[in-house]
Amino acid sequence: MSDTEKKYAFGMIGLGTMGRNLLLNMGDHGFAGAGFDKDASKGALLEQEDKNKNLKGFSEVEPFIASLSTPRAIMMLVPAGKIVDDVIAELLPLLDKGDILIDGGNSHFTDTNRRVEELESKGFHFFGMGVSGGEVGARRGPSMMPGGDKKAYEVMKPILEAIAAKADDGVPCVTYCGPGAAGHFVKMVHNGIEYGQMQLLAEVYEIMKKGLKMDNDHIQQVFAKWNEGRLQSYLLDITKDIFLYKAPGTDHLLIDDIKDEARAKGTGKWTSQVAMDLQAPIPTIDTAVSMRDLSKYKKLREQAGAIYSDQPSLDVTDLEQDLVELEQAYYFSMIISYAQGMHLLTNASAEYKYDLKLGEIAMIWRAGCIIRSQFLYDIYNAYTKNAQLAHLLLDDSVAKLVTEAVKGARGILSKTITAGIAAPAFTASLSYFDAFRSARMPSNLTQAQRDYFGAHTYELIGKEGTFHTQWVPKND
Amino acid sequence: MSDTEKKYAFGMIGLGTMGRNLLLNMGDHGFAGAGFDKDASKGALLEQEDKNKNLKGFSEVEPFIASLSTPRAIMMLVPAGKIVDDVIAELLPLLDKGDILIDGGNSHFTDTNRRVEELESKGFHFFGMGVSGGEVGARRGPSMMPGGDKKAYEVMKPILEAIAAKADDGVPCVTYCGPGAAGHFVKMVHNGIEYGQMQLLAEVYEIMKKGLKMDNDHIQQVFAKWNEGRLQSYLLDITKDIFLYKAPGTDHLLIDDIKDEARAKGTGKWTSQVAMDLQAPIPTIDTAVSMRDLSKYKKLREQAGAIYSDQPSLDVTDLEQDLVELEQAYYFSMIISYAQGMHLLTNASAEYKYDLKLGEIAMIWRAGCIIRSQFLYDIYNAYTKNAQLAHLLLDDSVAKLVTEAVKGARGILSKTITAGIAAPAFTASLSYFDAFRSARMPSNLTQAQRDYFGAHTYELIGKEGTFHTQWVPKND
Repeated sequence: MSDTEKKYAFGMIGLGTMGRNLLLNMGDHGFAGAGFDKDASKGALLEQEDKNKNLKGFSEVEPFIASLSTPRAIMMLVPAGKIVDDVIAELLPLLDKGDILIDGGNSHFTDTNRRVEELESKGFHFFGMGVSGGEVGARRGPSMMPGGDKKAYEVMKPILEAIAAKADDGVPCVTYCGPGAAGHFVKMVHNGIEYGQMQLLAEVYEIMKKGLKMDNDHIQQVFAKWNEGRLQSYLLDITKDIFLYKAPGTDHLLIDDIKDEARAKGTGKWTSQVAMDLQAPIPTIDTAVSMRDLSKYKKLREQAGAIYSDQPSLDVTDLEQDLVELEQAYYFSMIISYAQGMHLLTNASAEYKYDLKLGEIAMIWRAGCIIRSQFLYDIYNAYTKNAQLAHLLLDDSVAKLVTEAVKGARGILSKTITAGIAAPAFTASLSYFDAFRSARMPSNLTQAQRDYFGAHTYELIGKEGTFHTQWVPKND
Repeated sequence: MSDTEKKYAFGMIGLGTMGRNLLLNMGDHGFAGAGFDKDASKGALLEQEDKNKNLKGFSEVEPFIASLSTPRAIMMLVPAGKIVDDVIAELLPLLDKGDILIDGGNSHFTDTNRRVEELESKGFHFFGMGVSGGEVGARRGPSMMPGGDKKAYEVMKPILEAIAAKADDGVPCVTYCGPGAAGHFVKMVHNGIEYGQMQLLAEVYEIMKKGLKMDNDHIQQVFAKWNEGRLQSYLLDITKDIFLYKAPGTDHLLIDDIKDEARAKGTGKWTSQVAMDLQAPIPTIDTAVSMRDLSKYKKLREQAGAIYSDQPSLDVTDLEQDLVELEQAYYFSMIISYAQGMHLLTNASAEYKYDLKLGEIAMIWRAGCIIRSQFLYDIYNAYTKNAQLAHLLLDDSVAKLVTEAVKGARGILSKTITAGIAAPAFTASLSYFDAFRSARMPSNLTQAQRDYFGAHTYELIGKEGTFHTQWVPKND
């Protein structure tokens, strides 16, 4: 192939749902792109869906690489893990120093750290980039979270800003997050927040169905109404839609036929595990991970349901008032889930020296991504007003919203607890809040216990150093 | 040194609190032991405290090794992590094939797995053993959880059974747990349960103090009374004692002077992280880990306390009744914390092929260890009755206790939620229970959402395979 034939400004490896749609998005914006997938049907599908004839599919790697203008810019959108390393190993002999390689998948940030170092040492420009928005987002405008080699990002910036979702103020939902694996870390926390909010919505549904005894039509109407107000979010938006779909060929809703066993790809779990390493408490997200796991124990749950069989009974005397409380509870807990995620980012930024700009991260989450919502504009405002804000709940404007909404949370959750309806992410959010606002926690007892049984010492108020008491068991 | 001078049947490396007391315990039982610590004062302290003159301290490693009868049996009680590897590396050139090496510290089970393989391949017998009971336990009788090389355990068994704590029926609290790192895994989960129960006790204290407005004397009396009944446990026992100690030279209790910032050595965190990998939900323990972490953010909590300043107000109309409910809530949640830990062990046993005997594990936890309690006899009975019991909450006898106690949990927790008192591990326990007894969880919505935004497919009740819907956004 002669130089004159080289014409594609951008290459995509992996033409699954995300890769193909992202490339089509680029084609829409006038960029010439080449796509590679070993499965030739995917390249064919790409060309078929590409109305502007800007794109070309390849099923052999050498002609794909040869078709790219140099220095090359190539994104991988393949499953996280070993496959990414395999693709890199296959590519490297075909690339030239100075080429740009982008991992657009959901790689674990520790893998990305390693790859950033390895590829930099070999003279390549590498950055990891989280991409959120699912199929529609990739096609019409995702939110993108790149981190790593900043120079490489600057080269890619025009394309990425063109294809990104735009917030209400026209700002594209992509920005350089930070060095190393910062982009993938931010995307991981995004997904953790997503887990939390999906679990909260599941619990809203549970309370409406088992507690307030609402039918699917009514549930749909309330979700639709909520989505027009301050609760507006992408996740609520699709939830209200889901309650419109009938099971094919039947007269009842599809949702009722779907198994109550939710799967997971692991990014929520990663978030919780890393948060524990960073000592950033995110119990709402942890709970969401636990409940995904618990859902898989269907047989045990059926056995337990037969033993502990008293039915949940929430005494509904004023449904409208209960729904007001539930709306407040959801708003409150949604804020808490964001606050926990942002706090985790604050800790990670300090620990890993990412120098994250939380205002910019909120900015690029306002559109395109799965956790986009009306409230993300409030988060954006809070961190724009004070870039050093130590915790979202300490922002004045947020505090006003929280102070009001927590009342409803207390109201409805005291009822679900009495009634026997599980609302684990809701109660985790509320108890996190009540512990967080405790200037004095009961952890002094924990310190004393640790010193008693393990001589681990304790600290005293107003004194430097650690202390030990020779506790003498009183009943031995 | 000639062979005739060799006389010590057992060697201990690391004469800190645990190592020294464990060796003294062996000396009490007539075993001749040698102790090594680079800090010569520790060996001196050992000999000074050894009334029976069975023990000798060394501060040089060669004469220590030479003093042991062969094949040697040596236990390390040193801080987990790199130090264990360093000690092993220093020892190996001095040992002979066939010698037994025991890691009695809190090593992460993945490290133990690695060491079991490495040392076996070199001809040594290695086993990892969790030791619980703190200083007093080590001295008077700990609970010990060995796993790894079974033949080596059989050699050590007489010594270990002699020094172990004995349950009410005289059974020593040590048994072979399983191959590989089974012993350290079991000990890790023990510690996770310990975290959960310590957090629950902290929350009992919080509710009594901030909710029921009880003074320290009254709190002490209630703890003491509870400890005489079904709630009896080591942790409750030391807690009632802690509320008797005055701050030196003052007239008020020490507990009031201790900082509310609890530290942690990481075993609780490990438990939560591994549980997530094994998809075994243990939210009570996760919450305890989160709250240890949250306690460290003293400054943020003080700021939040100033912003969200409405004081908790629990309307106490019948204190005795509230205390009845609180007793039930604690009993209920304590059971849940054990049940989650046992469920994690069930999963680990299947995943790592430990072939754990949960009845035997409950058996050796009945005395000596930090989580020993009256209720461990109930757990022991449950798994003895049915070794295949899939979940503790499915046992008939346990179910009766839970069904009764959960009423009090609902009563007091609906009040703390209304009042604004944080009881995160309590609410996590109750919501876990309510989710666990849900034959139908709301996770069908989660499946639908995942398919909507990510084309992740869903499963249908009564049908094989996975399905996908071409969801069409209703408001785009």
